[in-house]
Amino acid sequence: LNSKLPTVGTTIFSVMSKLAQQHNAINLSQGFPDYATNPKLINFVADAMKDGYNQYAPMQGLQILRELVAEKMDKMYGAYYHPETEVTITAGGTQAIFTALAAVINPGDEVIIFEPAYDCYSPTVKLLGGLVKPFELHAPDYSIDWEMVKKLFTANTRMIILNSPHNPSGSILSKADIQALIKLTKNTDILIISDEVYEHIIFDGEKHESVALYPELQERSFIVASYGKLLHTTGWKLGYCLAPAKLMAEFRKIHQFNVFSVNTPMQLGVANYLKSENIYDSLSSFFQQKRDLFRSLLSETKFKLLPCKGSYFQCVSYSNFSDEKDIDMAKRLVTDFGVAGIPVSAFYTKGTDDKILRFCFAKEQDTLEKAVERLLKV
Amino acid sequence: LNSKLPTVGTTIFSVMSKLAQQHNAINLSQGFPDYATNPKLINFVADAMKDGYNQYAPMQGLQILRELVAEKMDKMYGAYYHPETEVTITAGGTQAIFTALAAVINPGDEVIIFEPAYDCYSPTVKLLGGLVKPFELHAPDYSIDWEMVKKLFTANTRMIILNSPHNPSGSILSKADIQALIKLTKNTDILIISDEVYEHIIFDGEKHESVALYPELQERSFIVASYGKLLHTTGWKLGYCLAPAKLMAEFRKIHQFNVFSVNTPMQLGVANYLKSENIYDSLSSFFQQKRDLFRSLLSETKFKLLPCKGSYFQCVSYSNFSDEKDIDMAKRLVTDFGVAGIPVSAFYTKGTDDKILRFCFAKEQDTLEKAVERLLKV
Ligand SMILES: CSCCC(=O)C(=O)O
Ligand SMILES: CSCCC(=O)C(=O)O
Repeated sequence: LNSKLPTVGTTIFSVMSKLAQQHNAINLSQGFPDYATNPKLINFVADAMKDGYNQYAPMQGLQILRELVAEKMDKMYGAYYHPETEVTITAGGTQAIFTALAAVINPGDEVIIFEPAYDCYSPTVKLLGGLVKPFELHAPDYSIDWEMVKKLFTANTRMIILNSPHNPSGSILSKADIQALIKLTKNTDILIISDEVYEHIIFDGEKHESVALYPELQERSFIVASYGKLLHTTGWKLGYCLAPAKLMAEFRKIHQFNVFSVNTPMQLGVANYLKSENIYDSLSSFFQQKRDLFRSLLSETKFKLLPCKGSYFQCVSYSNFSDEKDIDMAKRLVTDFGVAGIPVSAFYTKGTDDKILRFCFAKEQDTLEKAVERLLKV
Repeated sequence: LNSKLPTVGTTIFSVMSKLAQQHNAINLSQGFPDYATNPKLINFVADAMKDGYNQYAPMQGLQILRELVAEKMDKMYGAYYHPETEVTITAGGTQAIFTALAAVINPGDEVIIFEPAYDCYSPTVKLLGGLVKPFELHAPDYSIDWEMVKKLFTANTRMIILNSPHNPSGSILSKADIQALIKLTKNTDILIISDEVYEHIIFDGEKHESVALYPELQERSFIVASYGKLLHTTGWKLGYCLAPAKLMAEFRKIHQFNVFSVNTPMQLGVANYLKSENIYDSLSSFFQQKRDLFRSLLSETKFKLLPCKGSYFQCVSYSNFSDEKDIDMAKRLVTDFGVAGIPVSAFYTKGTDDKILRFCFAKEQDTLEKAVERLLKV
């Protein structure tokens, strides 16, 4: 058997979470909350099961949830998505990304990926016979030089993957970025996947620049969103994809044969919960408090803080005191100090190692305090 | 945008279920139960959420559930699967099939599919650049002439997809079938996907011929199973895939970038439920009662019953009284008589129309009685 992905190992998230568990370390590696889920939300899901919503949902998702998505996009971004033809509920953001790529990438197609990049993009492109064109961004601000990006464009450029707020760096796209992108893609048939799973986690009063705000981008984009991040339920594997009807039709051709449909009681429970309260507006301040606490604690350590404008990840640099490889440093933090983070080199095709670690701060105050107590000893 | 699957429309399941809904018909088309889910099972899932199991499961699935799967395979088939490396929990059987195909099918690879076939196999093979080699089976018994199958073999034959008990026909593979298959595949590197999602629904004391029973097949097979069918919860989208470690390693490379992991509280709830009672042994008799009732009721109609040895589907022929196309007949049954079934031509690549409809009998006695009352008027 010839492997179709010979260079792919286990994702860094599994590796680090497993290591953390083995050493009973505080796990700030894989991005997930360690605090309780809202009991009201849980009750809505339990009620959905008790009320008998246990059989296949429609392939595209429950109507009530798709309508809530469309309503939110209208309210928040003034963007119109038809719930019947332009919204599809997915088994998490990852499945949406995989499916969007599978829907449009043909062998030989080139996909521009900004790195460091969430680790599912590249292998999926390769699996489909596409070519990854990585564009490296670097600390401290991971900003994009669009004139340089333009140089990657060829006749085969099929897609650009955006991710803002950005995992792992915590950077965000600015209006200027968006304007540059609009200019670059004008009169091309380049498509976009805009991974906006952290759209509601953005700090210091900044505004999320969804591609949905810009018709010139919106018309060529798959937007990917995640209820796991919004509702602190990463294990429920619920998200959605938005796209203009023509693109969505292709997406659904794959979706229906990939997962067919998504967990019915989870969909209904989430829909009923979203109807019962506005949870969008408070998320940024909820996480900003955690970010601020974590940053102020970390500032006492030897690690150097990088900016964090969005997402629930804080990156730190240690080049000031060590030139150890970041994977070794990450492992040593687990084994010797009991704190797990993610080595950012895992997010670069070339393994570029800027001596940066990513920590997840979607954690109880107590967890963050204990983690930094340990990091103080480094 | 060039569609990668230009000939694919919406699955027949969505089409018929939607039509049924629009006309308020009794829906015996898409395969799902209409009776309540066991409240104990629901409580186990609710408890898992309340106990805080709401974050990412391990990529391969919860250990407790994988161990239960391995235990079952041992007990039931004497087959050894290592829970750590040979069992992966999936978002339903469909995702397992998609992922297994994506893991091994390269452009130009040929896949032998027995038709009528569940409608996700072929489009997925095509999406991956593979070539579908359909082998048509026909009423009444849908038996396989293995000498003829052999003639389809070429140097490019990469895979055979099995499905027993068989959807839509309700036929099952016999020991003789398995022996023929063993002979045919000996000294080849042909792989198998064995879709065994109806393994526990088999009638008249027949024994399910899992490929897990036969080392010569087991070593080259992905086995696909579904908790939706076992627990009457098709909407929970929970299943699993089994394969020898080498194959499973390739499967997981795709799985981790397709869905990453599967709904945590559902996994834990199902595991705890499975530990609390033996539900495997009673399933066949539960459905046999329904089958027998449905058949005896249907025998009063003009439709001719085909055999049904397993699955929860009963096929009927109407060639004795009409030569209408099966899709037209199926639609007319909805609009004029209020009963939805599936036209079996939808399961043939060539649309072969033997004038056969498939009805799902995973329904309350009352539902089956009312449906046949209506069918009596045809
Ligand atoms: C799918 S596991 C990884 C979770 C995550 O989004 C992250 O840690 O970056
Ligand atoms: C995934 S919807 C179809 C359900 C099913 O297994 C069938 O009806 O054959």
